[in-house]
Amino acid sequence: MTRSRDVSRYSDQALQKLSDDLMAGKRRALSKALTLIESHAPSHRPAALKLISVLEKGQRAPALRLGISGAPGAGKSTLIEALGLFLLEQGHRVAVLAVDPSSRQSGGSLLGDKTRMEQLSCSDQAFVRPAPSGFSPDGVSLGGVAFRTRESILLCEAAGYDIVIVETVGVGQSEAAVADLTDLFLFVLSPGAGDDLQNMKKGVMEIPDCFVVNKADGALLPFARRAASDCRAALQLSGHRPSENAPSGRRSVLLCSALEKSGLDLLWQELQSLKQERLDLGAFEERRLQQRQRWFEEELRHQTMEKLFTKLDAAEPAVEKIRKAVLEGQLGPGQGAQELLELLWKE
Amino acid sequence: MTRSRDVSRYSDQALQKLSDDLMAGKRRALSKALTLIESHAPSHRPAALKLISVLEKGQRAPALRLGISGAPGAGKSTLIEALGLFLLEQGHRVAVLAVDPSSRQSGGSLLGDKTRMEQLSCSDQAFVRPAPSGFSPDGVSLGGVAFRTRESILLCEAAGYDIVIVETVGVGQSEAAVADLTDLFLFVLSPGAGDDLQNMKKGVMEIPDCFVVNKADGALLPFARRAASDCRAALQLSGHRPSENAPSGRRSVLLCSALEKSGLDLLWQELQSLKQERLDLGAFEERRLQQRQRWFEEELRHQTMEKLFTKLDAAEPAVEKIRKAVLEGQLGPGQGAQELLELLWKE
Repeated sequence: MTRSRDVSRYSDQALQKLSDDLMAGKRRALSKALTLIESHAPSHRPAALKLISVLEKGQRAPALRLGISGAPGAGKSTLIEALGLFLLEQGHRVAVLAVDPSSRQSGGSLLGDKTRMEQLSCSDQAFVRPAPSGFSPDGVSLGGVAFRTRESILLCEAAGYDIVIVETVGVGQSEAAVADLTDLFLFVLSPGAGDDLQNMKKGVMEIPDCFVVNKADGALLPFARRAASDCRAALQLSGHRPSENAPSGRRSVLLCSALEKSGLDLLWQELQSLKQERLDLGAFEERRLQQRQRWFEEELRHQTMEKLFTKLDAAEPAVEKIRKAVLEGQLGPGQGAQELLELLWKE
Repeated sequence: MTRSRDVSRYSDQALQKLSDDLMAGKRRALSKALTLIESHAPSHRPAALKLISVLEKGQRAPALRLGISGAPGAGKSTLIEALGLFLLEQGHRVAVLAVDPSSRQSGGSLLGDKTRMEQLSCSDQAFVRPAPSGFSPDGVSLGGVAFRTRESILLCEAAGYDIVIVETVGVGQSEAAVADLTDLFLFVLSPGAGDDLQNMKKGVMEIPDCFVVNKADGALLPFARRAASDCRAALQLSGHRPSENAPSGRRSVLLCSALEKSGLDLLWQELQSLKQERLDLGAFEERRLQQRQRWFEEELRHQTMEKLFTKLDAAEPAVEKIRKAVLEGQLGPGQGAQELLELLWKE
């Protein structure tokens, strides 16, 4: 189905080699494949899609996909690094993907991305990928970021990483988006969590499967304890409602210190226990199935919009004529759009 | 361009009569036309679009479009009623359109809509329309609401209302959406505005052209004064930056009392002066032109998605086959979408 001219840069052989190298766990192949996935060039998409299909067929046992978010300053990155190193010690291979839904505005990855998670980045068994910049040709920033991230997760899994952490550096809406990409969603609070909790919009409190108060060390320990009990109280208020994401309604609040590397074992134990609970209830697979269904629907929307933009580019004089008529008030915008679309799709 | 079968319920003659009646200022015609615009039935769209084009050609001098938002409890509705009655006294004709971006979730207009703005509703020279329910077949709730509202504004203008107030009863994102539909945007604060200001997300503070603290009466007056000075301080902090919407960067903070009907004259004076300033700078027309451009683009997106859904419905067995392959992992979601779209648009 892939049109031959579109894959000029990636022949079937080249794609097969890329996928073989990636499945053999070669880091360079993974980096190269991620770059292909993240590419803005429309001509790269068919190759990227084909690669995904090939990798899915040869796929290993899927990883645990863990979403992590938190208020700025809660020490998300240091916690991810500490947790990642802990997981490496347990024999896991860990990939970290950063997602930045606001990258379109800031125009690139966050400052300091290169130096973040230095220790983790150095390990053979870990892979850290900063947020790609400037997504979403269709203007739906979050959507664009989200499904490139879905593909990136599959790539990491195919490369043998059995724990894929998706870190969102955005705020607000990004929580729901990242929860929709992952099996479990962890929210990191700082010891001054009162503010964090207040800043969490109504409804957001129900998204995480687990809360962890970081920096529970030294002089901050009593504050961390209080933040944890505030968080428990807030959860009580919001009613511990079971949801599609959390069928038992269980949402724990834990303490940890990325600095002292304490509490990480309990955190991991809790995450594993949550996973097991979901597996036993059949909810783990159900959630993945629904995520895949939504992914498919979003691809349909996205690719349809891309088709529209391609057609608009190709028919510029006609587009310009109708656009002028609309702007000058000779045509209503709705009717102008209707006439233009009939024209574009007539061929 | 409108296909004949689509306008079965509205012949060209019927549309012409509707538009004549509407332009003659007949209320029933306006109500009927708004219902046509708000209709969910795809078969009504071509007639609605045609009506808009007809009305635009015969249009009167455009009205002042005034967006009004505010924190819940700030007394937005009573202020709109008081301001509306004040404007009627000045010889204006006032239409009020309520927009509720969250209506999709709540499943309808807000409780009590029928009894809101009772006095204003009773006047011959005013027209009050509650928020329509359950928009957006494409899932982009805000977008769907927004461009139906654009059309409704045009209808009210064609019916001779020279001031159209768009009230948003939503929160958060809706401010930007309503500002994009209107010439001036007013934000209503309550005397306890400290909280309102804190709840305004970063960036939202820059959207309004004017702030007004309502309930500046009786025992609340000192609190209202303090709220106004807090608001001025917050504006100072945010830097009074000129923007596309506010080219001079001027943003006033006023006091009023809907209860005592005080401060309404100063508020109206300020709004008129802002309008004049924009007109002198050429910014008034520029803003409208950009809004119309965005409207056209949104119509293109929206109608394209509608086309997609129609095609998906018509090709159900093929859709189901590919969907199954995607959910069972035989096809990547992206490639599945690509194959499906090639199939749908081949005919």
